[in-house]
Amino acid sequence: MDIEQVILTLVVIFALAKGASLLFAKFGMPGLIGEIILGIIIANLVIGDFSFKEFLDLDGHTATHNILEVFSELGVIFLLFTVGLETKVKDLTSVGKAAILVAVLGVLVPFVVGYAYVMFIYDGNLYHALFMGAAMVATSVGITARVIKDMKLMDAKESRIIIGAAVIDDILGMIVLAIVSGMAETGGELNIGSVLTVAITAIIFVLIILVVAAKFVPSLYNAVEKKKEDRLASDPTYVPQRPNMFVIAIIVCLAVSYLATLIGLAAIIGAFLAGMLFAEHGWEWNLEEKFESITTLFVSFFFVYVGMNVSLTSFIENTSLITLAIIIIVLACITKFVGCGLGAKIADPSIDMSSLSIIGCGMMPRGEVGIIIALLGTTIMLDGSSALSPELYSVIVMMCIATTLIAPPILSKLYRKKYKEEYVITDSDRL
Amino acid sequence: MDIEQVILTLVVIFALAKGASLLFAKFGMPGLIGEIILGIIIANLVIGDFSFKEFLDLDGHTATHNILEVFSELGVIFLLFTVGLETKVKDLTSVGKAAILVAVLGVLVPFVVGYAYVMFIYDGNLYHALFMGAAMVATSVGITARVIKDMKLMDAKESRIIIGAAVIDDILGMIVLAIVSGMAETGGELNIGSVLTVAITAIIFVLIILVVAAKFVPSLYNAVEKKKEDRLASDPTYVPQRPNMFVIAIIVCLAVSYLATLIGLAAIIGAFLAGMLFAEHGWEWNLEEKFESITTLFVSFFFVYVGMNVSLTSFIENTSLITLAIIIIVLACITKFVGCGLGAKIADPSIDMSSLSIIGCGMMPRGEVGIIIALLGTTIMLDGSSALSPELYSVIVMMCIATTLIAPPILSKLYRKKYKEEYVITDSDRL
Repeated sequence: MDIEQVILTLVVIFALAKGASLLFAKFGMPGLIGEIILGIIIANLVIGDFSFKEFLDLDGHTATHNILEVFSELGVIFLLFTVGLETKVKDLTSVGKAAILVAVLGVLVPFVVGYAYVMFIYDGNLYHALFMGAAMVATSVGITARVIKDMKLMDAKESRIIIGAAVIDDILGMIVLAIVSGMAETGGELNIGSVLTVAITAIIFVLIILVVAAKFVPSLYNAVEKKKEDRLASDPTYVPQRPNMFVIAIIVCLAVSYLATLIGLAAIIGAFLAGMLFAEHGWEWNLEEKFESITTLFVSFFFVYVGMNVSLTSFIENTSLITLAIIIIVLACITKFVGCGLGAKIADPSIDMSSLSIIGCGMMPRGEVGIIIALLGTTIMLDGSSALSPELYSVIVMMCIATTLIAPPILSKLYRKKYKEEYVITDSDRL
Repeated sequence: MDIEQVILTLVVIFALAKGASLLFAKFGMPGLIGEIILGIIIANLVIGDFSFKEFLDLDGHTATHNILEVFSELGVIFLLFTVGLETKVKDLTSVGKAAILVAVLGVLVPFVVGYAYVMFIYDGNLYHALFMGAAMVATSVGITARVIKDMKLMDAKESRIIIGAAVIDDILGMIVLAIVSGMAETGGELNIGSVLTVAITAIIFVLIILVVAAKFVPSLYNAVEKKKEDRLASDPTYVPQRPNMFVIAIIVCLAVSYLATLIGLAAIIGAFLAGMLFAEHGWEWNLEEKFESITTLFVSFFFVYVGMNVSLTSFIENTSLITLAIIIIVLACITKFVGCGLGAKIADPSIDMSSLSIIGCGMMPRGEVGIIIALLGTTIMLDGSSALSPELYSVIVMMCIATTLIAPPILSKLYRKKYKEEYVITDSDRL
């Protein structure tokens, strides 16, 4: 490995990403869109003999590419941790019913429509239909979370419903994926055992973390504080030891992320839940500011990496694919919007249209989750061909990118309309 | 690449390193020694079928090993940047004469003695002698810098001399290395041209950065501030744009580190100089605190990595090597102590013994710089065998580790004796 090349690649991507983010923010769009588009440019830009990807040593599975992938993964892990850090269990449970309904209907409607379109209108291939349905299910909470964070509207009711629903949605998405890939791998038969195992372990994992966050952490905190006070009362010269909570938080964040992958969930779900463990006392330990620093360093690599996964050439070579992509993108937007809106309306019939729009729009981005599902579909082999065709894979990737690009500007407009005076341009918008 | 394995490895090393650091700090030793010893244990611990290195996927040139190497490199880069951030040009020039004399004599004495011992007492091989001399030259400023930073004694006169001398020392070390490897590669003849090129570019690079830090950055800062004031005077509603200096600092840090490698210097020299560019206004932009966060995340990987480079088996298999190692370690300590002490005494004859001891001791650790030089010696081939034998390579590595282990506890004792009341145990000592 050429470590000097790695440093060059990291600093070039970091500087360009922050520049792109600044540029987009100047035009009132979320900076992350600029970072994703930069990724698309890096992956596809060739001028004469100059290939951007080759210059950055990212062509193929190079060591530099591995480093970028790790930085991208850590970026989204730390991002979700900071989102969790601002989500207290009691906030989540107060919107619990709405979040559950938004998540369930936001999963059901896109899955059924995606499945039905491929099965009855497009090519009638069962596996294509199953993977299309599964890819349309998962919300990429990372994208929406950054928009919400940039606008400093974590406390808004809609934000809490979106984040709560996205967590449940991710778990439901993993269950759908387990069912679909289980069916594909057993050649059409449903493997009830593995499906149930994934579903039950996922729910137990989340419940355990929530109980620890709501009951165990506050008790532990109070016990430690009381012990300090007692000791101080009997010995006024005693200087309480202050453990480095930042170090502990990093360890818990990465450990819970890893644990999540062990039981078949995405690492980012673990990171989000780990953040929730520290939510109650995060401000006391200055964790938000400290994690802000490491998130600033890592998160741009995630959005650039998402953009880099798009291959524009397959669309140039096959124009009929563009028509299909447009149909799927429209379906993906409408079904998520309708499903989630319906869920929110059932939970609270008095909810107004502006809130429904924010929720429907906030749940739209599929981001990297859909891409991961599509990628899995291409690796499962059935009778010599993959469960998901390369063409449909490209369409799904495009759908994920499009929903990710479409939703944030609309979402920030909707938020700004509703919470006009509270909107603040943050530093990360500026550079 | 198995990204889940990478996360597991990172969190295990991070948690163990912080634990080891805490344990050593409890016994009054600098935490970094605990981290280096942890690295030695990781590299060498095999219990029955269980190999720690295999468990962490670090056996050989795995993708995980590459990631660890990048984290280690970024750790030492960010560490040196924070040291630079606390070193203002005017502080450095005020100890300039002392620093130069300490550096020059601290390079000359160890080189001559190391060369002479191998040439006239050990095996009389010219190349062995040259590389031994070169490896004994370079001070690893990272180790000492952390001790000084942990004790919050950056402002002490001795600290400024050590840091200043270490920078000059690194540049002299690179020149010595250029001469030695140039001689070895041309088979004994001295390649004056390449030696002069390296020497001159290094000095010009450092001077340019120092002038930019001392003249250009303050002028730019004042011009921007004045423009804001003028605008505010004519338009009281104007809200000044505040650029994200943290992002700019990260870009400059990595870019200057890369530039340094381009002209043949170590990346950490660039990082240190980049930090100096922001020293004058660093506190205003809250850079110290923000870089503290990312340094906390990365730096432990550097010290663990230094420890992991030690192979204990070669010493178990060849006991006469232990005698040689002990002689070389003693010579390395004495020559650096005498050389640097002499330099300080010549610069300021009124200096007292306690200050001389701190300077001599602070310059002792060879750390990774010596290891890098030794590694280079084993890759240059002469008549079918390497310029540096594998045995001498192991001895040099052991010398680097030993000086790195011996110096910090003595240094912190000497500092504590001299600046008793100012010593504060920092958070990073605790965990």
